[in-house]
Amino acid sequence: MAIDEYLRLRAAQIDRALADWAAERGPSVESRLLEAMEYSLRSPGKRIRPILVLASAEAAGVDSAPLLPFACAVEMVHAYSLVHDDLPAMDDDDLRRGRPTNHKVFGEALAILAGDALLTEAFVVMSATADRSLSAERRLAAMSELAIAAGAEGMVGGQTADILAEGVAADLDRVESIHKRKTGALLRGAVRIGGILAGAPAAELDSLSRYGDAIGLAFQIADDLLDELGDSGRTGKNTGRDRELAKSTYPARLGVAGARLRLRELLDRALAALDGFAPRADPLREIARMIASRAL
Amino acid sequence: MAIDEYLRLRAAQIDRALADWAAERGPSVESRLLEAMEYSLRSPGKRIRPILVLASAEAAGVDSAPLLPFACAVEMVHAYSLVHDDLPAMDDDDLRRGRPTNHKVFGEALAILAGDALLTEAFVVMSATADRSLSAERRLAAMSELAIAAGAEGMVGGQTADILAEGVAADLDRVESIHKRKTGALLRGAVRIGGILAGAPAAELDSLSRYGDAIGLAFQIADDLLDELGDSGRTGKNTGRDRELAKSTYPARLGVAGARLRLRELLDRALAALDGFAPRADPLREIARMIASRAL
Repeated sequence: MAIDEYLRLRAAQIDRALADWAAERGPSVESRLLEAMEYSLRSPGKRIRPILVLASAEAAGVDSAPLLPFACAVEMVHAYSLVHDDLPAMDDDDLRRGRPTNHKVFGEALAILAGDALLTEAFVVMSATADRSLSAERRLAAMSELAIAAGAEGMVGGQTADILAEGVAADLDRVESIHKRKTGALLRGAVRIGGILAGAPAAELDSLSRYGDAIGLAFQIADDLLDELGDSGRTGKNTGRDRELAKSTYPARLGVAGARLRLRELLDRALAALDGFAPRADPLREIARMIASRAL
Repeated sequence: MAIDEYLRLRAAQIDRALADWAAERGPSVESRLLEAMEYSLRSPGKRIRPILVLASAEAAGVDSAPLLPFACAVEMVHAYSLVHDDLPAMDDDDLRRGRPTNHKVFGEALAILAGDALLTEAFVVMSATADRSLSAERRLAAMSELAIAAGAEGMVGGQTADILAEGVAADLDRVESIHKRKTGALLRGAVRIGGILAGAPAAELDSLSRYGDAIGLAFQIADDLLDELGDSGRTGKNTGRDRELAKSTYPARLGVAGARLRLRELLDRALAALDGFAPRADPLREIARMIASRAL
């Protein structure tokens, strides 16, 4: 199957699962809250993170269908992080993926609450899934992985460090530490969750983690480059904002050429991590190429 | 043991566990983020919700010590909800438990992030606990309970409904529906989590749930009454704010005398739910009396 076709099918599968989730929650959730949650959760997007959960499990040799609730949970955590990051007190963005940001449509209070609800709902979905094909131990391990990736040591920690570093000249180690947590942790977590739920042996899970590390960092460098190069058609948001806020970015530290070189190295590293995997890891390989090629 | 002594001992046990948690997280979390999390998590308080987790398990006949991570998780969820509720875009409070609110000390961005991190950390703590005396199935069920209580159908849904109802005359059913979710869900959840982790049989868990329902609603009515009566020394926050914001409260709907009558009924109902329980449920009984007596 060609990668475009694979991504299209998996994204459609995830979108159906998210629609089912919303329909199921409809009767018991305040309609305006559900609307705000859905606005950001079901906005157009490539669904890279939930697809990584599924593709990683497939690379480890299992059917990915029972993992759909976990894939949806990862997308919920991603959606919540965007809603909160865009708030006036945070990055103060009006535009996201070419649409008004959540607080622009629903107001700040509801945007905060919708983000809170999406984050919490991720754990509802993961803990309540009735599918017994996944052992309770594996489900707990996957939930732990997502919580750590998303929380104070991961994504929230990275966003905090990013905000604290605004206007401060950060060295490359610090930039990398921020990137790893802010964007990398959730991408890495998505890959590892797939491996954990698939019951991948330790060595295989290590390889998947190294792949996740590499694409996680690559993703943020590509994002920085797109922002720096000012292609708002491709990013769907206002460009040049990072520079305006004097954020710690790779292009700011290494220049555009230096950042691109680092991006190529990371792509090589991601592919090398999958050396021992059969062709069923091809979707992971193609996703790595796709992430890097956005900005190469 | 007298109830005061019991509450003091349990609160001290929880405070120690929270201090251990902070010490353990210190090296891996941005110091300013951890500081903001600790500011609200470890602020002076009675620790009613985590104590309910422990007292409920004891009522069901088990040693509560292995449940401490779950008790801490419930307190983390409670602390996060206060931090976000106090934000300028929400209730816009400057004072909480007699101290400046989180965003007054750390700024809005960090307060949002500290709340996000506390909520997420609750799930880190519950899923990562190494204690194997609790089965993975029970831990999953407890996590599901907390996520549902805290999320779109519970606490966040109630806060949303409360904000949407500001300035709108809500009938008593609507007021009760808001209260049940906004404050009641987490208190009820705390009681049920203790029962679930203790492996309480279905009938016993039902009784605990009825107890939790009653004290959950009682707690909010008592809070409304204290706010209405304007005793800032007892609430530790600015009083009369609910009326100022034209919030949907029990005193506003039933008058002070009517709200007090309802509070007494709920206390009776909470005690009746525990009829079949041995004296080891006495702490639960005393906590119900204490909640109601605040405003009687």
